[in-house]
Amino acid sequence: MTTWTLARRAQKMNPSVIREILKITEKPGIISFAGGLPSPKTFPVEAFDQASQRVLQNDGAAALQYAASEGFLALREHVAQNLPWEVDPDQVLITTGSQQGLDLVAKILIDSGSRILVETPTYLGALQAFAPMEPVVASVASDAEGPDLNSLSQQMGSGANAARFFYVLPNFQNPTGRTMSEARRAALVEKAAELGLPLIEDNPYGDLWFDTPPPKPLTARNPDGCIYLGSFSKVLAPGLRLGFLVAPKTLYPKLLQAKQAADLHTPGYNQRMVVETLKGGFLERHVPTIRSLYKNQCTAMLQALDTEMQGLGLEWNTPDGGMFLWVRLPDGMNAVELLPKAVDAGVAFVPGAAFYADNADPRTLRLSFVTASVEQIHTGIAALAQAIRTFAKG
Amino acid sequence: MTTWTLARRAQKMNPSVIREILKITEKPGIISFAGGLPSPKTFPVEAFDQASQRVLQNDGAAALQYAASEGFLALREHVAQNLPWEVDPDQVLITTGSQQGLDLVAKILIDSGSRILVETPTYLGALQAFAPMEPVVASVASDAEGPDLNSLSQQMGSGANAARFFYVLPNFQNPTGRTMSEARRAALVEKAAELGLPLIEDNPYGDLWFDTPPPKPLTARNPDGCIYLGSFSKVLAPGLRLGFLVAPKTLYPKLLQAKQAADLHTPGYNQRMVVETLKGGFLERHVPTIRSLYKNQCTAMLQALDTEMQGLGLEWNTPDGGMFLWVRLPDGMNAVELLPKAVDAGVAFVPGAAFYADNADPRTLRLSFVTASVEQIHTGIAALAQAIRTFAKG
Repeated sequence: MTTWTLARRAQKMNPSVIREILKITEKPGIISFAGGLPSPKTFPVEAFDQASQRVLQNDGAAALQYAASEGFLALREHVAQNLPWEVDPDQVLITTGSQQGLDLVAKILIDSGSRILVETPTYLGALQAFAPMEPVVASVASDAEGPDLNSLSQQMGSGANAARFFYVLPNFQNPTGRTMSEARRAALVEKAAELGLPLIEDNPYGDLWFDTPPPKPLTARNPDGCIYLGSFSKVLAPGLRLGFLVAPKTLYPKLLQAKQAADLHTPGYNQRMVVETLKGGFLERHVPTIRSLYKNQCTAMLQALDTEMQGLGLEWNTPDGGMFLWVRLPDGMNAVELLPKAVDAGVAFVPGAAFYADNADPRTLRLSFVTASVEQIHTGIAALAQAIRTFAKG
Repeated sequence: MTTWTLARRAQKMNPSVIREILKITEKPGIISFAGGLPSPKTFPVEAFDQASQRVLQNDGAAALQYAASEGFLALREHVAQNLPWEVDPDQVLITTGSQQGLDLVAKILIDSGSRILVETPTYLGALQAFAPMEPVVASVASDAEGPDLNSLSQQMGSGANAARFFYVLPNFQNPTGRTMSEARRAALVEKAAELGLPLIEDNPYGDLWFDTPPPKPLTARNPDGCIYLGSFSKVLAPGLRLGFLVAPKTLYPKLLQAKQAADLHTPGYNQRMVVETLKGGFLERHVPTIRSLYKNQCTAMLQALDTEMQGLGLEWNTPDGGMFLWVRLPDGMNAVELLPKAVDAGVAFVPGAAFYADNADPRTLRLSFVTASVEQIHTGIAALAQAIRTFAKG
């Protein structure tokens, strides 16, 4: 009889709340504002098809062979050249989606019991990526402009218990859609340097601004104090699993060794396909079409909320880009309890509680405006209002 | 001033010896027997090109969207149907190369200080994948038929110190090219069950037999006591990074959660491309051409060794498949010291020492016969013999 002894970390692992919700909400007929799925309308299928043919026909053997763990040089060069601060391609590590960047960061910076800091609320996938290394996660309070720096100082810890890093998502944050202001960025970078605190800056959504680009990244202000994570999932397509990280040169070798051990390298074929697709300024033409689509859908959702939620006591924010907006139900209501009623009414969302490391606000919920069409958005928000009215009556 | 505190595991990480050697040996003009790179002649470039077009044109949106962490169902079904024991597709997890399978196994089964067992010698990449979880690695002695079961019992440990698993590569092992005999497989599975010891069976090379298939997998004999790892890297191409694992249903959810946290999912586009490629019995036509190519090159290397190494006191084995053979230099010679002289003579290999968890045999070295052509093999082995003669003279 075989004895499988699970590692302590595995005993603590739980199924992703979001993945479980997505399963429920995948029923036909449900309008889902739950997933963070980019609109398939934005996927450059035709460009990929041509790029794939060129890669296989001109460079098939190299594209299909084992390759460097660092990533394909031409892609690393593209990344370095398109970031708004001076980056050497040797600081760029191509990752299997930016989720893998979080796994690698966790592996090289977190010991069991290490203190790490996250925003309140924060990206659930980051909490999941960090959890296997068994950190103690402390939340930094935040307001509409970003993290509260007094809370940061209080949560920092000291000596052996000093936080290993602060994980932040400054642009159109998942889950809140919030953007960190210029003033808060400047103050946060200064405060972090003063505290000696490394920043892990996650920027999957930064290119998806509606009217004006967000302020420059935290990493641009102090490159030696930050690891920066980026992704091609939102500007091209998530199904290729292509992300990257930019690290100070002193840390890069350890991240590279962790990468080698994790999956040897990110698919070289996919990297070459993207390099081929990007040639001739593809993103300069393509990304504006995504911005305009998402802005249009976000506007539709805000209008529908204005119309449908009148008098119901809800609050929500107005994102400047990205994929999500953040709603707060009136006092006494609970988003987890609302969800099944909403699904009955034909609409789904993610309760906000999933995104808190602790002290969840049970009244919050996340709405994605990128997957559903404008028409579906109007229908779905009306259904959600109906579910809320039913729920309020008990 | 930012303080980056590395996790303890990161301080122990080291650059891959093989990757470092590969860098040296990538000089033009060097005939390399060092890398484990499948022959690019075997990559089905044309079939991939057609498959990629079909996937993008017929199913582009789904292929490029976020997808299930388990992997694409049709691919999991293919894997389950083609294994020689009863496997439910729900036991199959698609991984980003089989290297990722090792990372996930390590995450769910190894605590800091956990005892784990490996063969002597063993696959270097496995040692690297396990290392971040900080195991105590103990080596099980082996002979030409496979692991020594007395050594296994001695190394097992007991109580809280009992080994979490024994990692084995029974078919055409990397690095030795050795195949575990039928008798040893039966005895090992019985002994492991008696000890309560889980087996991690890695089988990247099993399809690459020359004349007869290897005996059936360990997992087929005791599916609840084993995790089985497989790969498409050697039968299709490594650059797609597609592997899989098969786990007992009780363990699967934890592996799945570790997978979600690691990279959300393996590229769906790549999975669909491979499903499309495999339709109509592609592998049944394709894999025999790889077998015949590698058998031919292995035979050439054995002939060249017979001819060129006469009187030099070397020993080597005769693999029944796979990619590698294993050479032992005469007493007093050291493969690490020989390497620079071999590179000077125009040929490269990997010193065997890299593949031992402890007590390395400094006289061993690994030769890959799959990347170089027959002509290069003859030239390269002659150059190696020359280097050995020079080295022997001091």
